[in-house]
Amino acid sequence: MSKRGLLTVISGFSGSGKGTVVNELVKRYGYSLSISATTRKAREGEIDGVHYFFKTEKEFMDMIDDHGLIEWVKYIDNYYGTPRNYVNEMLDQGKDIILEIEMQGGLKVKANYKDALLIFMTPPSASVLKERLIGRGTEDMTTINKRLHRASEETVYIDSYDYLIVNDNLDDCVNTINRIINVEKQRIVRNNDLLNYIKNDFSNI
Amino acid sequence: MSKRGLLTVISGFSGSGKGTVVNELVKRYGYSLSISATTRKAREGEIDGVHYFFKTEKEFMDMIDDHGLIEWVKYIDNYYGTPRNYVNEMLDQGKDIILEIEMQGGLKVKANYKDALLIFMTPPSASVLKERLIGRGTEDMTTINKRLHRASEETVYIDSYDYLIVNDNLDDCVNTINRIINVEKQRIVRNNDLLNYIKNDFSNI
Repeated sequence: MSKRGLLTVISGFSGSGKGTVVNELVKRYGYSLSISATTRKAREGEIDGVHYFFKTEKEFMDMIDDHGLIEWVKYIDNYYGTPRNYVNEMLDQGKDIILEIEMQGGLKVKANYKDALLIFMTPPSASVLKERLIGRGTEDMTTINKRLHRASEETVYIDSYDYLIVNDNLDDCVNTINRIINVEKQRIVRNNDLLNYIKNDFSNI
Repeated sequence: MSKRGLLTVISGFSGSGKGTVVNELVKRYGYSLSISATTRKAREGEIDGVHYFFKTEKEFMDMIDDHGLIEWVKYIDNYYGTPRNYVNEMLDQGKDIILEIEMQGGLKVKANYKDALLIFMTPPSASVLKERLIGRGTEDMTTINKRLHRASEETVYIDSYDYLIVNDNLDDCVNTINRIINVEKQRIVRNNDLLNYIKNDFSNI
């Protein structure tokens, strides 16, 4: 009997370093990555089917109509969504999946998968976030300001997440999240088979 | 600003080895132990104010009347209760407390302390439990049968606990529970100060 995998959502302010942390979690501990569908153009080095499923707007709309997405959002000028079949297949195979998506998407996932684990990452302070976004140098100030404004809007949803992790050191952050996932997998709500076995065995003692 | 401690309730079937595990958690990791009040007679080696606060029935009833107990139960022929002041003082000092009590008591603690962590320990199987109780040799078969009957009744409450830990190896069990406590302390619901700091800092970015 293979145990169903755990679905972990990792969200965070733009510039919180969540992309790097997620990559390290996959590399060091073998977590599976959910791949989002998006209409955003591929950045240099991004590969279709690895970093994202890159879709035209027409293709994306068809996926919505077919209930093929657990959640989707329009963020700035692009659509992002989580393919339902892809996630379910991996969970059924017992794989622990990490889903790196923004907050509103994370809350929609939680509505669909009650036992999903929600982790929110933040830089140590708002000023550090600002510095990181500007330092990255990949976006103009208009886009950066949109991201900062978005961050301020997102603060109201943090309460709905399970853990708030301050990313001030990559290794600490990766280790902490790995420990959280391993512990959370042991919660009773995620172990119905064990619970039922013990209940049956002991109720007839 | 000292962070409030975490209150962890550890319950388990008689014979689950919870006493040994709790002692090791205190010894290895420095957790504080909550001391129960009880009307049960001290067993050999048990010290008043260390293992229990041993009380007469009259003294115990007075504590109930004064709302001095978070929870109390009559178990077999004795009363057991958790002194409220003692627990609150330790939590205020930032100490992580372990409370080793039976299930119904644990649920009453949860009703009073919403962010308490509830861990239930079980032997690997009902037959192992039976063997352990008989092997202990400290009780007659009537008492053992009462305990077994009690175990079967308790199974219905396991769902209300956060974690179900199978104790088939002392070291594994102690390490697992220590990891659980350390991770659970980081849940957002137990870190209002951090949450509020981040919300305020980022909402005015």
